[in-house]
Amino acid sequence: MKGVTTNQSGELIYTDVEDVRLSDQEVLIDVYASAVNRLDLIQRKNHSSYVENPVLGVEVAGVIKDPNGHPHLNKGARVMGLVNGGGYAERVAMPADRVMKIPENLSFEQAAAIPEVFLTAYQTLYWIGELQQKEKVLVHAGGSGVGTAAIQLARQLSDAEIFVTAGTQEKLSVCKDLGADHLINYKTENFANEVHRITNKTGVNVILDFVGASYWEKNYDSMAIDGRWVLIGVLGGMTVENINLMKLMQKRIQLTGTLLTQRSDVYKSQLSKAFIERTFDLFKSGMLKPVVDTVFPIEEADASHQYMEANKNTGKIILKVK
Amino acid sequence: MKGVTTNQSGELIYTDVEDVRLSDQEVLIDVYASAVNRLDLIQRKNHSSYVENPVLGVEVAGVIKDPNGHPHLNKGARVMGLVNGGGYAERVAMPADRVMKIPENLSFEQAAAIPEVFLTAYQTLYWIGELQQKEKVLVHAGGSGVGTAAIQLARQLSDAEIFVTAGTQEKLSVCKDLGADHLINYKTENFANEVHRITNKTGVNVILDFVGASYWEKNYDSMAIDGRWVLIGVLGGMTVENINLMKLMQKRIQLTGTLLTQRSDVYKSQLSKAFIERTFDLFKSGMLKPVVDTVFPIEEADASHQYMEANKNTGKIILKVK
Repeated sequence: MKGVTTNQSGELIYTDVEDVRLSDQEVLIDVYASAVNRLDLIQRKNHSSYVENPVLGVEVAGVIKDPNGHPHLNKGARVMGLVNGGGYAERVAMPADRVMKIPENLSFEQAAAIPEVFLTAYQTLYWIGELQQKEKVLVHAGGSGVGTAAIQLARQLSDAEIFVTAGTQEKLSVCKDLGADHLINYKTENFANEVHRITNKTGVNVILDFVGASYWEKNYDSMAIDGRWVLIGVLGGMTVENINLMKLMQKRIQLTGTLLTQRSDVYKSQLSKAFIERTFDLFKSGMLKPVVDTVFPIEEADASHQYMEANKNTGKIILKVK
Repeated sequence: MKGVTTNQSGELIYTDVEDVRLSDQEVLIDVYASAVNRLDLIQRKNHSSYVENPVLGVEVAGVIKDPNGHPHLNKGARVMGLVNGGGYAERVAMPADRVMKIPENLSFEQAAAIPEVFLTAYQTLYWIGELQQKEKVLVHAGGSGVGTAAIQLARQLSDAEIFVTAGTQEKLSVCKDLGADHLINYKTENFANEVHRITNKTGVNVILDFVGASYWEKNYDSMAIDGRWVLIGVLGGMTVENINLMKLMQKRIQLTGTLLTQRSDVYKSQLSKAFIERTFDLFKSGMLKPVVDTVFPIEEADASHQYMEANKNTGKIILKVK
């Protein structure tokens, strides 16, 4: 079969790769679409790979080619989900207990835009951030894949008051369409000042932070008492100079770092189940929408990575396999 | 009535103070014993006070003098609990819904050693740290009031594997008697190295941290994957110079700052109820023990503060009122 790996100069090439070998816990998926994640970029750069699979890619949408004896799964069913590497390929193994059915109104390209970002957003907002009905949430990088998913979930599941930051008016406008209430252009405005002004200095209850170091003080200032701050990326640097711990105690902040990909199979399975039960009908009715920025043919995987590195996308970058 | 306030040179004096005025939610307590907390030291130094009460003290043991119409409370009952200031005095107002009955085997001096440190330890270990059965917990300042309470709770309620740090062999020996498994003298040993060695580099699940900045890196290194780190003091400084956020994400650490005194009345009431239901019988049977270091007569409140500042105590410093 064909799949995408890294050549010696670090470029992505679509070439012949070893065929999938299934374990008992897995089913075989005929991949129609995969999607690009920041983790893939890091792995390409490091010439590393995820769980020793030389083929990149941690999520796909496709059709079950071999249910491998799992009675609740049927050959030919349209499914999506996280895989342990190998997603940028014609076929991939997916653990049977994290297979999610695709709502019939969605194409494979749309479905491939769901797993990683929606599961990450769901996990961070609800399992970690414990977002409650009508609370205030600040979503950084509102135009990113996880950002666009988080805005929709906070709107549809919690009727939250949603603050977003992004670097262009185009991205902010997409955020607004998805349900964000307060749009902050971080290039022209100080988001902490805006949060103070809008909340009358009481701050936000949950922060979804992909930025890290460069936003540290402003996030600190933006947090409400008993706020939950979830760190899932360090796009703005990983080293913070000078942290005042008194603020952490006085505001009783809960700061949690998390990365979805390294979680256990059991965790991913439980998360996939909880997520799809809660959201399937909302996708079906169009209340939740996968946000696809661009679809690249799988042969152009290298160009898709350059596109993400240039930070040009609003929503997901998809690889069309067939 | 008499109570302890600060004179203009910052000393504590036992003198005539204004009598208590009860609100509808409060009962009147005849105070037999109060106890010293670090917060009291800070308030004395700042010439500030807690919720505008010029009399220091946030916990007492005594007898109900006036139940003030609260049907579940009886005149003459022996009770203990947190108060909103005013504890270093002959009488004090206590919110009725946080009154805890004193187990009959305990004296007033012993009972006054319970509320602040046991409620803090219970809150941090269970409500915030979510300590599970047989998990590993690292308790810093094991000889402190909260430390001695946390060791006992982790032993009796969770059968945890308990690591403690303290600065003298005497303090470590008390920790051992209370149920600690691994004793680390921070003056002669690097606790992170000891934790690595004993846990075979897997780390501890919960850290109870009163120290802050000076232990930062070692705490980071001591944490297990998915660990919970609760910060309740900054005895070792409040400013951390360099924090690497990648570790927070890779270990998926949950870091929470908390202070009990500033919590709402509702929170303190719920915490008091949950705590005493879970522990009353264990105090009664002697499985849990208040740890009293020294009893000062209330007239010598100033000396009791100097004693705590010198870090001499193992367990609580009590003020005997009558």
